[in-house]
Amino acid sequence: MAENQVLVNHDDLQSFVSALFEKTGVPKEDANFFAQSLVNINLWGIDSHGVLRVPIYTKRLQAGSCNPNPEIKTLKSAITLEVLHGDDGPGQIVGRVAMERAIEIAKEYNVGIVGAVRSNHFGAAATFTRMAVKEGMLGVAMTNVVQNVVAPGGSKPVIGNNPFSIAVPTYGDFPFVLDISLSAVAGGKLLLASKKGEKIPFGWGTDKDGHPTDDPTEAFNGFLLPVGGHKGLGLAYAVEIMTGLLSGGVFLDAMKGMYKYPEDPSLTSHLMMAINISAIMEPAEQKERMAEFTDKIHESPMWDESKEMLLPGEIEHRTMLKRQEEGVPLPQNLYEELVALAESLGVETTLSKK
Amino acid sequence: MAENQVLVNHDDLQSFVSALFEKTGVPKEDANFFAQSLVNINLWGIDSHGVLRVPIYTKRLQAGSCNPNPEIKTLKSAITLEVLHGDDGPGQIVGRVAMERAIEIAKEYNVGIVGAVRSNHFGAAATFTRMAVKEGMLGVAMTNVVQNVVAPGGSKPVIGNNPFSIAVPTYGDFPFVLDISLSAVAGGKLLLASKKGEKIPFGWGTDKDGHPTDDPTEAFNGFLLPVGGHKGLGLAYAVEIMTGLLSGGVFLDAMKGMYKYPEDPSLTSHLMMAINISAIMEPAEQKERMAEFTDKIHESPMWDESKEMLLPGEIEHRTMLKRQEEGVPLPQNLYEELVALAESLGVETTLSKK
Repeated sequence: MAENQVLVNHDDLQSFVSALFEKTGVPKEDANFFAQSLVNINLWGIDSHGVLRVPIYTKRLQAGSCNPNPEIKTLKSAITLEVLHGDDGPGQIVGRVAMERAIEIAKEYNVGIVGAVRSNHFGAAATFTRMAVKEGMLGVAMTNVVQNVVAPGGSKPVIGNNPFSIAVPTYGDFPFVLDISLSAVAGGKLLLASKKGEKIPFGWGTDKDGHPTDDPTEAFNGFLLPVGGHKGLGLAYAVEIMTGLLSGGVFLDAMKGMYKYPEDPSLTSHLMMAINISAIMEPAEQKERMAEFTDKIHESPMWDESKEMLLPGEIEHRTMLKRQEEGVPLPQNLYEELVALAESLGVETTLSKK
Repeated sequence: MAENQVLVNHDDLQSFVSALFEKTGVPKEDANFFAQSLVNINLWGIDSHGVLRVPIYTKRLQAGSCNPNPEIKTLKSAITLEVLHGDDGPGQIVGRVAMERAIEIAKEYNVGIVGAVRSNHFGAAATFTRMAVKEGMLGVAMTNVVQNVVAPGGSKPVIGNNPFSIAVPTYGDFPFVLDISLSAVAGGKLLLASKKGEKIPFGWGTDKDGHPTDDPTEAFNGFLLPVGGHKGLGLAYAVEIMTGLLSGGVFLDAMKGMYKYPEDPSLTSHLMMAINISAIMEPAEQKERMAEFTDKIHESPMWDESKEMLLPGEIEHRTMLKRQEEGVPLPQNLYEELVALAESLGVETTLSKK
């Protein structure tokens, strides 16, 4: 274990974070789901989107810019298509309601597509696509985020790195789960390279004027580039259109960054889709075919024989098993920040080190 | 005009190619659509997927590996979801029937998703998503292709660069049309760099053993890399799952490359989706919001002020207007190949230079 981190039990972490959220006015059951979604993200190893965000979420819940107890309503409704008004609630809660509704619709019509407007940051998109998988469905989830990606040749950010997830049941050890943002890399990768004094590829980021750079410090203070140039850029536009634009929410510069405007609702939009695959293929056949697919990928040769060819979702599954056993690692300063936050809120649940 | 190319009128080209296809046994109306789809692709400027493919398509139609007159049947049918059997017909014809059916379903249920198995190369995915746009719908089209992309670290191709398109009506001068393959670049770009003696970025391709290279000749003789590393790889897997795997077709190494196995059906699968957006947002509002989106992108500043920020589909629109006026440029040797092909088939329609 690294010197400057502590290990905590994942169930303890869930109870602790849930108690924090409850103290800000989130109803118990919502607080449980919200906290569990963040702990799951840490269990999958995506530490940038897990409990690291508890301080900003709590700050926003207290400020009311994120409504702890939203009244989520149906704004628009047609066969197979709906749009919800999230009442500025936490993205995790609004997203959950939207995906639950998409699944419900798909039980009747085999496909359900539900948009949501007036939401906030929803954590990881896989939170929702995995809900569909649990019901034996293919799930798609996407969200818009504040403009943070510069188009190749542009001098300021034009689009968010709009995350996108798709998950498919395998009926095996782990589902197929792809969860990606549409920038080449996350900002954290630039920071890491900067700290290590390493150069970065020119496709990762730009300086403050939009010029591609191989200097990670310049890039960290500049802008992200889309994954694969115009390809990722086009996909990010498509996600923006399918979330903010066609759901009737706001888009592009009308969004508000959650860190920059902690007092304001983020005006985030999501889109959730569930497809009931079993209507055209029995689960047993799906299982068999997904196993064949998985085996073929696993057996594909690597030039470094010590490496393995893994499926999307597989490394998350392995990390989860390890962290459920050994504990979730938290940076020491994050641990201290969470404990101090609990004290300041008068939360009695404690967070023991493992 | 470059010295080694000729210009032809797009309508003449369409009639000429259509006559070629008809001669191989494709029914007149199908031949017209098939030829028009290829000429459109040339009009959009995507010369790698247009009439350049007529010789291989014709060869396969004559061999019967591509069935000129397929009996396309419904294999599976449920509310909103269907799968067609393409009877080894041209991908353009099978794809058209699948998208027409998706649109028909979406007229009733607002969403239609139609898979197709036992098809062949379908040209450009945008052919089909633009069909949805013409009906005021959002269209999605995807296909699997033979394994031609190596996973980072892999030593042989594991997945195809599975093309994906999404198009959205704008009710303006041109629709939003994204059409991308999931390799970093097409093979043609490697060949071009090789001919120019230029180095390529390490993310584009690998040598024959799967090692990333900046030598375009090595890469051209090696393998393509996925766009954005694991992100594009995961998307390509997702497309494979949604096409070949869940439609009940073949996938991965069971596919047959159209050039390598000209005598065998390619066993390609497609997926088409149409969403009737107007069920939740009036066309007038869609138009207004898409125009606002377009304006905001157009107005985003570039660091080279002589450059413009264009939307996906915009450059294709401009190229189309230009080529409709000035003619479609064909490399001299392709022009000669097409003329010789027509002669050998006894086609009477001629292809005049403009």
